[in-house]
Amino acid sequence: MMAGVSERALIRLIRGASVSVAPELIQGIGDDCAVFGTTDAGQWLITTDTLVDLIHFDRHWHSPELLGRKSIAVNLSDIAAMGGVPRFVLLSLCLPVSLGSEWLQRWLSGVSAILAEQGCVLIGGDTVHGRELVISVTVIGKAGEGKILYRTGARPGDIVYISGPLGSAAAGLALFQRAKEEGTDPGQWPQWQDLLDAHLDPAPQLELGQQLGLSGCVSAMQDISDGLATDLAHICLESGTGSILYAARLPALPSLDSAATFLAQEKLDLMVKGGEDYQLLFTVRPGREKELEARILTTLHHQIYPVGIITEGQGVILEKNDGTRCDITFQGYEH
Amino acid sequence: MMAGVSERALIRLIRGASVSVAPELIQGIGDDCAVFGTTDAGQWLITTDTLVDLIHFDRHWHSPELLGRKSIAVNLSDIAAMGGVPRFVLLSLCLPVSLGSEWLQRWLSGVSAILAEQGCVLIGGDTVHGRELVISVTVIGKAGEGKILYRTGARPGDIVYISGPLGSAAAGLALFQRAKEEGTDPGQWPQWQDLLDAHLDPAPQLELGQQLGLSGCVSAMQDISDGLATDLAHICLESGTGSILYAARLPALPSLDSAATFLAQEKLDLMVKGGEDYQLLFTVRPGREKELEARILTTLHHQIYPVGIITEGQGVILEKNDGTRCDITFQGYEH
Repeated sequence: MMAGVSERALIRLIRGASVSVAPELIQGIGDDCAVFGTTDAGQWLITTDTLVDLIHFDRHWHSPELLGRKSIAVNLSDIAAMGGVPRFVLLSLCLPVSLGSEWLQRWLSGVSAILAEQGCVLIGGDTVHGRELVISVTVIGKAGEGKILYRTGARPGDIVYISGPLGSAAAGLALFQRAKEEGTDPGQWPQWQDLLDAHLDPAPQLELGQQLGLSGCVSAMQDISDGLATDLAHICLESGTGSILYAARLPALPSLDSAATFLAQEKLDLMVKGGEDYQLLFTVRPGREKELEARILTTLHHQIYPVGIITEGQGVILEKNDGTRCDITFQGYEH
Repeated sequence: MMAGVSERALIRLIRGASVSVAPELIQGIGDDCAVFGTTDAGQWLITTDTLVDLIHFDRHWHSPELLGRKSIAVNLSDIAAMGGVPRFVLLSLCLPVSLGSEWLQRWLSGVSAILAEQGCVLIGGDTVHGRELVISVTVIGKAGEGKILYRTGARPGDIVYISGPLGSAAAGLALFQRAKEEGTDPGQWPQWQDLLDAHLDPAPQLELGQQLGLSGCVSAMQDISDGLATDLAHICLESGTGSILYAARLPALPSLDSAATFLAQEKLDLMVKGGEDYQLLFTVRPGREKELEARILTTLHHQIYPVGIITEGQGVILEKNDGTRCDITFQGYEH
């Protein structure tokens, strides 16, 4: 986090200048994607994200190919978080002259690979020269066959679910930073390869997002990009609710224990405040949990994890293993 | 123009990674906007542009408010160039901490003003901190009631038209640069205020673009952002034709003569190679010129200017007042 006005404060300013009611506008600013179109003629999702060199990534450990994949993946995750199907991508690159066409070609090969995997195509782009590498990506998706899932739908009594392990990407990033400081090769840590990979090459949960939209069981959803503490706070704020998370229920990769010890960081902090896991965070109507868990296991062979509950009030409370509670509202990661 | 690989070469690489055939994709990369949707359910235009501090603008003379207007205007011009109606805007800002929230608020007030003028709304955005100011804007438009006008439709015998004076913005930029070098105030040059304004606050030709789409007379169109020499070369390349421009017919503001003399620049160079006029460049089927000129004069009180002809062959030939000819293909402005 840099000095000065926080990014969240700046985003509030932009939100203040935005509009939520206009013809063919279904959802303006304030969710993972904006939504436009009509129910009859098809609803489109759109999202844009900007990545800046040495703030959102470090080319010391991010190859051009993997950075290409990740530049797209973080946006695909926003489409996943609305239950959508990604279709079209536009790129805006500000490229230092020092990187040149070979770097761009390798970056584009990573972009093309993930787009092909997701049945999504590049339809526009702009490249300019600048002093630092800045990557802006816009992704357009089609609403899935199911319901579009917004952040606003959570109600007291709903169960909070996440789609997979937490803290992996934050631990992976910390390991890369440690290796860079010490001038060593992170390849020396094969036992933490899954954490390193979680940072390098996150997997947007598109199929899961679509299935959750289809299920009829889910009341609100977003992706976990800024850490569970912040992302659940968004759902609570938009839904007008509070929430409790149970530390004992939060899933993690087995390798996270030893990595946290090595990094001298609290494992729970990595899981709750660490960013960039790109898992889905969603709330399920009470009584529908078993049906939904079975459906997702059958269709996708994917386990989902109940980790908390939506309450009256506001904010995010974390109940630790010893029964003590603390407020972690918006205590996630800022770059 | 900086050293290293040209921006055009980089854009060619991106184009190589793009796709032109996909479900609901009507036009991929290679025109002012990409087009998606279906004829039945409505066709959407989308365009994205990135502006970098000290490359595309200079805050020495661009106030936050006017820079906000221009950041949007350059994208609206791409919507105009397809005959579309702008609807939704997404912003991605990379903001140095030194600029802070007051600067952003002023920039946003300029953005809001031009959006309100055009009936267009802000629906998404992202702000990150970085070392230099980089502004990426994405605009979504709806296809107009008329035909969507692409770059590909020009045929030999078509008349080349432009919508207004050329060279104004390039002269305005050169005047601002001169004043900065000399540490003087450009306010000392009231006789060139129209040129200064053309650089500071360009006006996208949205109503004209829509009328040209409705007319049934226009075969190809794009906006003049990189200079007539480059932008007409794009139409020729995409249409598989050549072209001849007649220097004697190119319109300019009366103030351009004295400014060019003062700047020790060729007036014709400013008009043909200077960028950022954001006029429309279009081709008209032979025999339809008078009908079109009358229609535009009646509906918009706007004069349009025939300046050349589409030919067999390729590239852009400029015929000077003395009858000599030279090839100016792609000799426009690079930032």
